[in-house]
Amino acid sequence: METLRVTPLIDHTLLRADASREDIERLCTEARQYGFAAVCVNGCWVELAAWRLEETDIKVATVVGFPLGACDPDVKRFETETAIEHGAHEIDMVINLAWLKAREDRKLFREIRDVVEAAEGRTVKVILETALLNEEEKRLGCELAKGAGARFVKTSTGFGPGGATVEDVRLLREAVGPHFGVKASGGIRNLGSARALVRAGANRIGTSSGVLIAQEEAREAGEGSEPGQQPAEPNPEEEE
Amino acid sequence: METLRVTPLIDHTLLRADASREDIERLCTEARQYGFAAVCVNGCWVELAAWRLEETDIKVATVVGFPLGACDPDVKRFETETAIEHGAHEIDMVINLAWLKAREDRKLFREIRDVVEAAEGRTVKVILETALLNEEEKRLGCELAKGAGARFVKTSTGFGPGGATVEDVRLLREAVGPHFGVKASGGIRNLGSARALVRAGANRIGTSSGVLIAQEEAREAGEGSEPGQQPAEPNPEEEE
Repeated sequence: METLRVTPLIDHTLLRADASREDIERLCTEARQYGFAAVCVNGCWVELAAWRLEETDIKVATVVGFPLGACDPDVKRFETETAIEHGAHEIDMVINLAWLKAREDRKLFREIRDVVEAAEGRTVKVILETALLNEEEKRLGCELAKGAGARFVKTSTGFGPGGATVEDVRLLREAVGPHFGVKASGGIRNLGSARALVRAGANRIGTSSGVLIAQEEAREAGEGSEPGQQPAEPNPEEEE
Repeated sequence: METLRVTPLIDHTLLRADASREDIERLCTEARQYGFAAVCVNGCWVELAAWRLEETDIKVATVVGFPLGACDPDVKRFETETAIEHGAHEIDMVINLAWLKAREDRKLFREIRDVVEAAEGRTVKVILETALLNEEEKRLGCELAKGAGARFVKTSTGFGPGGATVEDVRLLREAVGPHFGVKASGGIRNLGSARALVRAGANRIGTSSGVLIAQEEAREAGEGSEPGQQPAEPNPEEEE
């Protein structure tokens, strides 16, 4: 079986309401250390993260209309503009779920396209919150995201009733085709589940367990992991 | 013991991501039927609720920066402006918890005052998410909400790790004094708990169980409840 590296696909994510400045700084440091794809932070931290990741290839992703997706669409557009001004490279927006369930295609297309336009060429990921949707709704979400100019569909906010499943990722990948992004997120806690989701078709993994996954992957590859970064095996010499 | 009517203090709340148009219409109908203080809905429903409650005294409340409170402060201001344009009477904003924990008083004062100014005289409630705060942080939140021109402090979003407690409501009431609003919200499911929170000092109750509470209160007062509105005791004659 071919070896599949998951670590470079990780959006290293910290969206807790009470995450501190120090937490965000640590997140950025870890992203550099492990070579993650991006950090994903709330809007009030975009400027700090952009500064901390200056002159690296690591992207700053932030969330819009998060996590309910039920704010006014003008607010999503404005939130995107603000994030871009502050240095965000990627926008993870939550789709309006009520409209999706009511098949309000025109409203949904417009809200996604407004965010895409406000993002001025940067990557937009459309969060579907798949745990609340049936198959038809998931497919409609994919179609609208593609049609309106987004670059990814994303399974979950991590605040909903369920996270990424292999079945959903497979369905999303099938729906969007091979030349579009699928981000699996929500409840991904270890290398095994991350890898299963990548095999199912995900090309980005959103998780707050990025460090553990990267360490597991590094150990498996026989590279060993960074000293002092392995909470399961504390090194007494480090404790000073 | 004096009788305390809880029903007129209720903000009849529906903030689920997938609440439908029909759900919001029902919410407004119930608010008229039971005489609640307000409905509380997500931003995309403000216009509909304002239309449905036209020419009543029932207020339309909506949420800003909800539920994480971690978006950029400019987004909270813009979200407030948009809600007011669409007919909102009351704004329930979530305070930035990271700043509260870091004692960033100036930033917090400014973000609350910006929302108060954008609300143009309408009631602003500052959600503290008390389950994530220590006593000192709760008191600071109260002080800032008062100083910046809000009219209420509110315990919880209902999406955090805990809801309203009698102890927290007592503390908030003590901190803001008698001439300021205290809204208890989160996990309030029956008349007994609503009444205990009012006795502790709350003058507004945010709950998605408003109909059950109002029916319980009406039964207790011997008025009986509306026909067909009592799920626990279905009337077969109504089933046609």
